[in-house]
Parts: sequence; structure tokens; C-alpha cells
Amino acid sequence: MYSFKNDYTENAHPRLLQALIDTNMEQDEGYGLDRHSMAAAESIRSLLGVREEDADVHLLCGGTQANLIAISAFLRPHEAVIAANTAHICVHEAGAIEATGHKILTVPTADGKLRPDEIQKVLDIHEDEHMVKPRLVKISNSTEIGTVYKKRELENLSMFCRENKLLLYVDGARMGSAMTAEGSDLTLADMNRLTDAFYIGGTKNGALLGEALVISNDALKEDFRYHIKQKGGLLAKGRALGVQFEELFRDGLYFELAKHANAMAQLIATELKKRGCDFLTDSPSNQIFPILPDELIEKLQKNYAFYVWQKMDEKNSAIRLVTSWTTKEEMVREFLKEF
Amino acid sequence: MYSFKNDYTENAHPRLLQALIDTNMEQDEGYGLDRHSMAAAESIRSLLGVREEDADVHLLCGGTQANLIAISAFLRPHEAVIAANTAHICVHEAGAIEATGHKILTVPTADGKLRPDEIQKVLDIHEDEHMVKPRLVKISNSTEIGTVYKKRELENLSMFCRENKLLLYVDGARMGSAMTAEGSDLTLADMNRLTDAFYIGGTKNGALLGEALVISNDALKEDFRYHIKQKGGLLAKGRALGVQFEELFRDGLYFELAKHANAMAQLIATELKKRGCDFLTDSPSNQIFPILPDELIEKLQKNYAFYVWQKMDEKNSAIRLVTSWTTKEEMVREFLKEF
Amino acid sequence: MYSFKNDYTENAHPRLLQALIDTNMEQDEGYGLDRHSMAAAESIRSLLGVREEDADVHLLCGGTQANLIAISAFLRPHEAVIAANTAHICVHEAGAIEATGHKILTVPTADGKLRPDEIQKVLDIHEDEHMVKPRLVKISNSTEIGTVYKKRELENLSMFCRENKLLLYVDGARMGSAMTAEGSDLTLADMNRLTDAFYIGGTKNGALLGEALVISNDALKEDFRYHIKQKGGLLAKGRALGVQFEELFRDGLYFELAKHANAMAQLIATELKKRGCDFLTDSPSNQIFPILPDELIEKLQKNYAFYVWQKMDEKNSAIRLVTSWTTKEEMVREFLKEF
Amino acid sequence: MYSFKNDYTENAHPRLLQALIDTNMEQDEGYGLDRHSMAAAESIRSLLGVREEDADVHLLCGGTQANLIAISAFLRPHEAVIAANTAHICVHEAGAIEATGHKILTVPTADGKLRPDEIQKVLDIHEDEHMVKPRLVKISNSTEIGTVYKKRELENLSMFCRENKLLLYVDGARMGSAMTAEGSDLTLADMNRLTDAFYIGGTKNGALLGEALVISNDALKEDFRYHIKQKGGLLAKGRALGVQFEELFRDGLYFELAKHANAMAQLIATELKKRGCDFLTDSPSNQIFPILPDELIEKLQKNYAFYVWQKMDEKNSAIRLVTSWTTKEEMVREFLKEF
Repeated sequence: MYSFKNDYTENAHPRLLQALIDTNMEQDEGYGLDRHSMAAAESIRSLLGVREEDADVHLLCGGTQANLIAISAFLRPHEAVIAANTAHICVHEAGAIEATGHKILTVPTADGKLRPDEIQKVLDIHEDEHMVKPRLVKISNSTEIGTVYKKRELENLSMFCRENKLLLYVDGARMGSAMTAEGSDLTLADMNRLTDAFYIGGTKNGALLGEALVISNDALKEDFRYHIKQKGGLLAKGRALGVQFEELFRDGLYFELAKHANAMAQLIATELKKRGCDFLTDSPSNQIFPILPDELIEKLQKNYAFYVWQKMDEKNSAIRLVTSWTTKEEMVREFLKEF
Repeated sequence: MYSFKNDYTENAHPRLLQALIDTNMEQDEGYGLDRHSMAAAESIRSLLGVREEDADVHLLCGGTQANLIAISAFLRPHEAVIAANTAHICVHEAGAIEATGHKILTVPTADGKLRPDEIQKVLDIHEDEHMVKPRLVKISNSTEIGTVYKKRELENLSMFCRENKLLLYVDGARMGSAMTAEGSDLTLADMNRLTDAFYIGGTKNGALLGEALVISNDALKEDFRYHIKQKGGLLAKGRALGVQFEELFRDGLYFELAKHANAMAQLIATELKKRGCDFLTDSPSNQIFPILPDELIEKLQKNYAFYVWQKMDEKNSAIRLVTSWTTKEEMVREFLKEF
Repeated sequence: MYSFKNDYTENAHPRLLQALIDTNMEQDEGYGLDRHSMAAAESIRSLLGVREEDADVHLLCGGTQANLIAISAFLRPHEAVIAANTAHICVHEAGAIEATGHKILTVPTADGKLRPDEIQKVLDIHEDEHMVKPRLVKISNSTEIGTVYKKRELENLSMFCRENKLLLYVDGARMGSAMTAEGSDLTLADMNRLTDAFYIGGTKNGALLGEALVISNDALKEDFRYHIKQKGGLLAKGRALGVQFEELFRDGLYFELAKHANAMAQLIATELKKRGCDFLTDSPSNQIFPILPDELIEKLQKNYAFYVWQKMDEKNSAIRLVTSWTTKEEMVREFLKEF
Repeated sequence: MYSFKNDYTENAHPRLLQALIDTNMEQDEGYGLDRHSMAAAESIRSLLGVREEDADVHLLCGGTQANLIAISAFLRPHEAVIAANTAHICVHEAGAIEATGHKILTVPTADGKLRPDEIQKVLDIHEDEHMVKPRLVKISNSTEIGTVYKKRELENLSMFCRENKLLLYVDGARMGSAMTAEGSDLTLADMNRLTDAFYIGGTKNGALLGEALVISNDALKEDFRYHIKQKGGLLAKGRALGVQFEELFRDGLYFELAKHANAMAQLIATELKKRGCDFLTDSPSNQIFPILPDELIEKLQKNYAFYVWQKMDEKNSAIRLVTSWTTKEEMVREFLKEF
């Protein structure tokens, strides 16, 4: 049985584990104030092309944690989030955002991406204090269904948000895959320039655990560490995150791993397209959603693990295949023989 | 500069890192449903002498997270916690418990331990719906000031709680140190038998991160994983915790590490006592609080890092010295030369 | 200018004000423990045909308050509400339910009513701890768009909820109108028998303020007054609510007022139907939604206040007309002359 | 049986009920946007000597509601309240503030009043993100034990708060009594000038229900009505509050009622002092706390209702006697015959 279920089926990239070993017996400060967390933050800022005072970097344990800490820290009690109906925070975080007191206003989307005109419709019907006040737009890049924002799209969204006094926040659990997807014209520096805050996912791209939250909007920076602590996100051995992000961004390993993951998914996609296969979404990233006959799906399930995503009609369903830095080309070739 | 500041100054025990490496490329389930998390849970239950249906074990990232998830899952909105005024949740968790909606009723204590008669006083003044309803007693073992509960004390507390329909929950960030302290007559099996839930701290006893929460009260078990997820505590690579706890409890490494930490602290304590030094509390664990002349403290600070805990009088203060599995006897001997 | 904007445009029924005057200087207990609150509860239980131990009655200030106190008291943190997308709690309560930590799962409906098969669809996609756990079905009767549940419909819903371990809670801000609508075959006793809790709205049917929450499910009764107090809903002079509900249910005044409100709305509806007018929903209650040419709407607005509810096409919109116990037949006749 | 239990034993002042009757059938806007709520706000501003843009006035239902809405609207999640240990929010609001997520840091006081040096001590021990951040000082005037702030004291507190970036908020459930107490040199205008927000209690001084919250700090005004709505405090018939406050402040009725209440309590106090009675606190307001032999207390309880506040020694206890606008001098004279 080989798994295409997700990008956290194996554990961490060996270089990260080695870095943990190499630094293991150093005595250092706790709670993310250690030299490695500092160095990781500095590496990230350097990638963004900004100075220390321009962007705060906080290393957190996981995506749900990053989302709930950021959103609850950024909003006042009556303010709400706007997100695509496919967004992780709407569906797969067990109500984590609502548990901090905030409503999520969902926008139906076919491709998982938010656009200004759809957000405008939400604004139009929220006019007074009997309703929540929309305040933060949350997108994912890549999205939960594999699609990726173009620079033009993010610029439009960014401009719209600023004009409407909305914060723009990006869930980047798969930011590596988004940045290195074929056709992607966005850089992390663009991401930083066009948003108020975003996070760079480590867990799904080679880390044992860890997400790097970047806050560029000055108004959102104050006292942020209090919120991390209050929500249980401040690790005593915060260096465990620092060491890993330091290594991921030492020499481009982060992007290399993501590129490989994308390449493996796209290899499958290209081959399936050649065989006439349709896809649920047009994904250039490491998550693809081929539509297959249920009969074939059943056969595949004997040797491969993956999610059946959505029933399409009587006889066909979309499945989700996810690749990662660990996916071997020979396993992909083997898998393709099934078609 | 050598640090006695805390027990998370270095990172993880080498055997735990090696276990992470050895299991790294296994494909496994996410979110704590992997074989190593299962095995770790089984090891812990075996130590407690119970069957699978008797105790649920959940592996969490840190102490504040464990406390806030457990307490918010166990209580209804109007129910409150009773804790010692020295308790971590009262002081050093940035209001994490209150952020989940619950008041903490604090009891002043000299030695950090709670006793039935003091809890009774709290119950006496909470009589109707104009006040919160006391419902959960939270203790720490060892306490934040190094003291340790005796079996007799925990039995009394347990009986009192059951008679008064109070839940008993133990913060065991330093459970290893408590269990192996000289004179301690409590076992983890006792801990399980006498409480409704408690956690076994990994971070402060050799793990990179990780606390194992044990729930024995059936009424508190239902749907607990929802709460972990909702509060951002469910790691995609939950195995990172599983592998470590599996190793810690494979052959007694957990207790061995704690015993060493205790021995190093007690070596300091014994030697200082010989030199006539007084202590803030009577601690048999890995945290000791000698009272020293401020002049001496200043001198010590040149070569050693530690917290100055409390001013005692014009010329003397209590300091906190913490040892761990990493503390070398030669460093302790070196330190003792300063006196 | 005459207003059909809502059913709280005028203040309280004179008999209620007189009752406040008559009882004004009595010395009595505070916080709803006075003799009038007790008597009101007893009157309501007598209408429901139950004994004191069968149903708890709590008098609260307003609808949003009743909803948020009830729902947050009934649910554990990970549990969610299912409601129609038109429901007041989804739209017009400023995120009050989410502010207590709970997600609302919305079901699109044309007529504002929930049906088992639509709820089943929500249950089908909530399968594990990565999502919230649906636990409480919230309906409104009459609904926010004027429709009314039939006994058969409520029985089906009730049976479905019990089979699926879902709580059934009814927002009865306009319960009087629902109970007395033509064709309605439901009684308050049915309401009590078929649900876990519901409230009988006073504010929109003659009271200065006040909603009577009835809890019949024993598991939901415990400590409920703590929740009222904690959410700021326990009035020192709770008698102000007690006296009013006592009067409303002394001799059927409550139903008499609702019947009049319904009659006035239906008089308008009948006359407009005669003139060929279509309606957004088929409402037998005191809220009707005629679809009118925008030109006519503009003309009407010169002398009448009402909400323009929804644009239907280029030239027509649905408006909302609400009547109450205060609506005079001559004003209705006058209004009808505009058509 | 005659009650000195509290100042809400009877209902509303007849002039307020009459005003409700006189305005009853007017058609007006809902949710506090009616002409009477506007007029009441204007009256209050005029008393404060400020213009509309200087102070927002919101009419709320009760004290716990006012406190929880104001505090949760004013604070970010990690910020905490500082209050006297005797404060209503610490003891008698069922954890209402914590339920909105905020910790209350309590300061022990003998007379119920807060002073800068005691607040400084709290600030001194809250130094980083492991602890909550003290942000709002909450006092009551008069206090829960009858004492009253002097202008000098409030000025000191105000200056201290401003220097330390702390908000100053006053719970004025018994503001009338405080303002009219003998020796009081504070005016409502001072109150407004020296604080960020405060409320003027109606319920305990002649209203059926109602508290007028005044916000003078511009930074706290934005979107405040959203918070009222979200917490269930926006009455559909907000005019019920508006009409009452309009009447209370039409011609000084509010102060007249409070003055009478004070006079009655002080009449008792003066007579008891003549008879050698000691008091728990030095109260010039409508709550007094004479210390009496338990034997006498038992005898008094046969004909009078009041709270036994605190055991003083083996044979004596302090009781609480509360008077109000309804207290008749002949009843007081009658009561005094018991001594």
C-alpha cells in the first residue's frame, strides 16, 4: 500500500532532523527567543526583502493554530471573516475560529479562490450593527482544491481590501507549492507586500511541525506574543521550530522540496490528461483531483491510499492525490501503470 | 555562562531524536492516529495498570495547551476552577483559562499545595447563581515551587473532591520529577486512580515537545479529540509526539531522566544546607529555591543564569535553580565552589 | 406617516402597564424569584398541561438574549447549531451565537422552514473531529419570512432529531402569531412535547420587553440560572417581566393580541391577492411579503414606513409589512386605498 | 415583614410608569434609536456639560450586562481588568467578565476603594507575555460596601491610569447615591472628565430597569452598538429605557430619589451610632453595615429582611441595610425602636 493521502504521511526532511541533532545540547533561551528562531526570522525577512522593523515573524506549531491565533488577535469581537466555502477554516478546523468568537461569512466558489466582486456582495448586505462587521478576508494559497493565485489576482484583492478597510490574511499551509507551481508569478516578497499577514507552512513541506507567520501591518503587531501564549502556542523549546525553519531557508531547501512535490503531482496529471482524464480543478500544485470511474477507483484502492473527494455522477468521482518532497518518481511511474 | 534557569534549556534526549530518525520515512496516519502514538498510549496505560477502555491518552504539544484544552472541554460555561495562587494557570499562562471563559478561584498557599479545608472555604462562599460554580480542582505535581504531594495528601484531596462533586485534574509538567523525588510514595497508577485526568509532561523531561494527557473519568472522554482540534492542538504529524513518548516509556528512560534531574538539584540543596543556607520551600524535586545574600546572587550571576524568584528582606532573596536530565555533576560541583 | 415596519413600533399593551402600576409598591424578591414571575411560570405550565417538574420557565429580556443564553448553555464547545439561512441567529444577531463559541451550519431554504432531509445532508458531511459536531437544530415559528410550521412538520422534525441525538430548539419571537395563524394546528402543548426547549415571545406581542423560555428536557435544566446571570440576563427587578407575562396569560390576552395582528396582515394579503398581487412567501401570520412594482413602492413610502425586503427583478421588489395588536383596521383600509 | 434587603425590592417610581403610559402609543424607531432615548442621552450630556460628539450614551438593561458589554468591547483578548476584591464583577456576576475571555486581577481592599499604589503593585508583577496585560481599572461608586470616592481620590486614580495607559471605568449601579452622599464633592461632570467610561444606574434608583453607559474616550466609541447587539443587550423597544431616563433627568428626579435613599440610611446610621453601634465601613450612602450582636440580629429578622454580611467574632456580625427612594421615614423610625 502506497499513500497519496496527504503531504504529511512521512515525517521531516533528514536535513532538519540533522540540524536538530547538531544543535541539541546548546543552552539557549526558551519560548522562541533562541538564536535559531531569530536566525530563521531573519532568513525569512531577507527573502521578503524587508528589514526587521518591517515584518514580525512568529513560529507556530500548526495551521489551525496559526489561523486561530492570528484571526482572534487581529479582530475585535464584532468583526467577521470572509472566506471561500472551501476554506480550511470553514470546514476542517472544528469551528476553531468561531470558538474564538468570530463568525465566518462564506462565499461559494468553484475554484477555491476569492474575487473582489464576490466580497463586495458580502459587504453589500452587512450594513448595520444587527449584523457582524466584515473585517478580514482570508484566502489560502495554494487553495484547498489545489488552485493557485496569480499576481494580478492577488493585487486586485489587495487593492480591494485596502479600499474597503478589510485586512487580507493568507493561509499558506502549502505556500511552498503555490510559490513554485508552474505558471506562478508570485513571490514571497509579493505576498508580504500585498497582504497584512500570511503564514509559510512548514508541516506540509518537510518540517516535523511548524508554520512561520509573517505580520507586516504595524497595527497588527503589538503584543502578538501574548496571543500565542494565551492560545497555548508558545513552545518552551521554541528552538525546535527555529532550527527547522533556519535549515529550510538556509539555501532554498524549502522551495526545492515544494518543487519536487509539484513535479510529481503534475507528472501524474499530465499522464492522466493524455489518457483523456478530466479534473475537478485546474491545479498546478501538489494536490490534484482527477475524475475517475468508480470502478477504477475501487481497483486503485487495493494498492494506494487517497481520499475520494466528491461524487460527480452515477459512475464517476473526483479523488484527491497529494504528493510531497518524499514522493518517489518510480512510485509515480508504478502508479501510472494502473491506468 | 551556565544555565540553571529551567529544564528546557537544552533540547531533546538523543534517544528520542534517534527514534525520530529511525521512523522518519514510514508512511503513517496523521493527527495522532499513527502506530507510534498508539503504542505510546499503550505503554502509558500499561504503566498505569489499566486496559484501553479505562483510560484515554492524548498527546499534546505543551503544558498551557494541555491545561486549556482539558479544562475547557471538562467544564460547562458557568463552572470554575479552584487552584493555588502559585499555580501556573493563575499566573503564567497569559489568562489562557479565562480566555476559554472560565474563572479561576485562587487559594493562597505557602507551599503550593491545595488542601481540602481550604477548598471547603471556597465552596462555602459560592452558594448560588450570582457566583460561578466551583467544579474542578487543579493541582500541579510537582508544584511550581518544587514541592511534591504525598499519597496520603492526594488521597484526601481525591476523596474530598468526589464527595463534593468536584473534578480533580493534575498539571504534571514535572510529573517525572514528582514521581521520582526522594520520599515520594505516589506512582502514576495512584495518580490515575485518584484523579479524573492528569498529564505527564514530556517537554521538561527530555522531549522536544509533548505532554501526555490521561483521562480516566468516562464522563470526560467523549469527543475529546474535537476539543484538541478546535484549540489548534492536533498535529498533522502527531507521530512526532508518539515516537518520543514511545521511547520515553520503552524501558523507563522517563523516570531515569527525572531521577537524574532530582539528584542534581538535591546535590546542590544538600551542600547548601550544610553551609547553613535556608530555602523558600522544602523541595525534593528538580526545582530548588535557596535564599541567598543579594551580594552573593550578584556574583553568581556573572557565570550562571537563573531566576531571582522573590525578595525576602533588605539583603536576601530566594533564587530558583532548576536542573534537568542534561545537568552534569561536574557543572554542579563547579557551581558549588562559588559558596 | 404610518408604520408597518415591525411589531414593536408602539410600546406595551395598556393592561400590562396597568398591572405594573397595580403591583408597583409591593415588596418582593429580586432576580425573577418574585411571586409574579412564579405565577407567570405557573400559568404557562398550565397552558402546556404540565407539572412544575416537567418544564422550567425562565423570563428573559429579548430574543437575541434568549437564543444566546439557551444555545450556549445547552452545547459543549465543539457542538454546532443547524439553522435555516434565513434564521435570525444567522443574520441579524451580530454573530451572538458565534460570540459564545459555536458555529452555525446554515441550510438554504425557500420558505424559511427546516426539513429532516436537509438536516440529514448536513449530518452526512460532518463525520469526524476535524469538523464541528452538529448538535442542536434551531427553527423559528413563525419563521423570519412569515411561514408557519404544521403539526405534522414539527412531529417529523422532532422524531428525526431524537433519532439523531439532536436537540430541537424553537425561537418563538412570534410564537403568538404562529399559534393563532389560520390553518395552524399546533398548540403550545405540542410545542413543548415535541421540542427540548422553546421560547414564547412577549416583546413582539404586547409586552414592554420579555420572552418566556420553556425547557422541558431535564438534561438541559440544571444550573440554567447561572447562565442567565453570566450573560447579563438576570434582571434585579425580574418582576417587571413576571407581572407582564402573568397578565398576558391570565385570560388569553396573549392569543387575542396575536390573532388581531394576524387578522390585520391577512386583511391586507387577501385584498392584495384580489388585485392580482404575488407574494414572496405563503404567510398566514402577521408578516407578509407582497411583491410590488418599484414605482408603487416609492409612492407608498411617502405615507407608510416598511422594509423593502428583496429585489425580485428589474421593476419589482418584495416588501415586508408587519402588523401587531396595535394595528387599527381603519389604517389598514386607508392603506389599501393606495392600491 | 419589611425589607431593607436591597434597593430594588419595589418597582419603578410612579412618574416613570406614567411616562411610559403617556408615550405608549407613539410610533417610534426600535433598538434605542427612538426620540426618547435620544432625548435622555441629550439630558445626560447636558448634565455632563458636553456636546454630542464628546460623549456617547447607551441605555442598557442591567449592571452585569453593562459591565460585560463595556469591558469586552474595550479590551483585546490578552488584556485584563484590575478591580477591588469586593467588586461586583469579581464576586457576584457569575464569572461574566471571564466568560468574555478576560481575567480580573483582584486587589484586596478594606474599604472597597482602589488606590494607585495598590494598582502599581499589580503592574509591577505583570511584565511579559507569559502573563495577562493589565489594561482597565474598574471601580464602583458608591462601592459594594457603601463607601464613596472623593474628588481628590478619583483625580489621583485618573492621573495614574493615564500615565500608565490604563483605562478607567466606573460601575455606577449606585451612582445616584454616590453623587448625593453627604460630603461627596464629585459631580457627574467630574466623573465624565476623569474616566474613560462609566454608567449611571437606573435600576437601583427608581427605574424599572436601565443603566446609562457614558463613553467619553473616543477610541472606545467605535462600533459600540455592535457589541450591545451581540451580547443580547439591544432591546427592540429600547424606548422603554429612553422614556425612563428622560423622566429621571427631566428635572433632577434622579438626584432627589438618591438623596432620599441616603437620608434614610443615614438616619439609621446616626441613631445607631448614638447607641454606640460600630460599622463595618464608613458609609455615607444608602448601604450601611452596622455590627450587631447575633442575638439582636435574630430578633430583628422576625420583622425585617436584610442580609447578614459578615461574621465579625463569636457573638457579633455585620448586617447590610439598604434603603431606597421607597423607604418611608416612619418605617425607619419603627425599625429604630428595635434598638
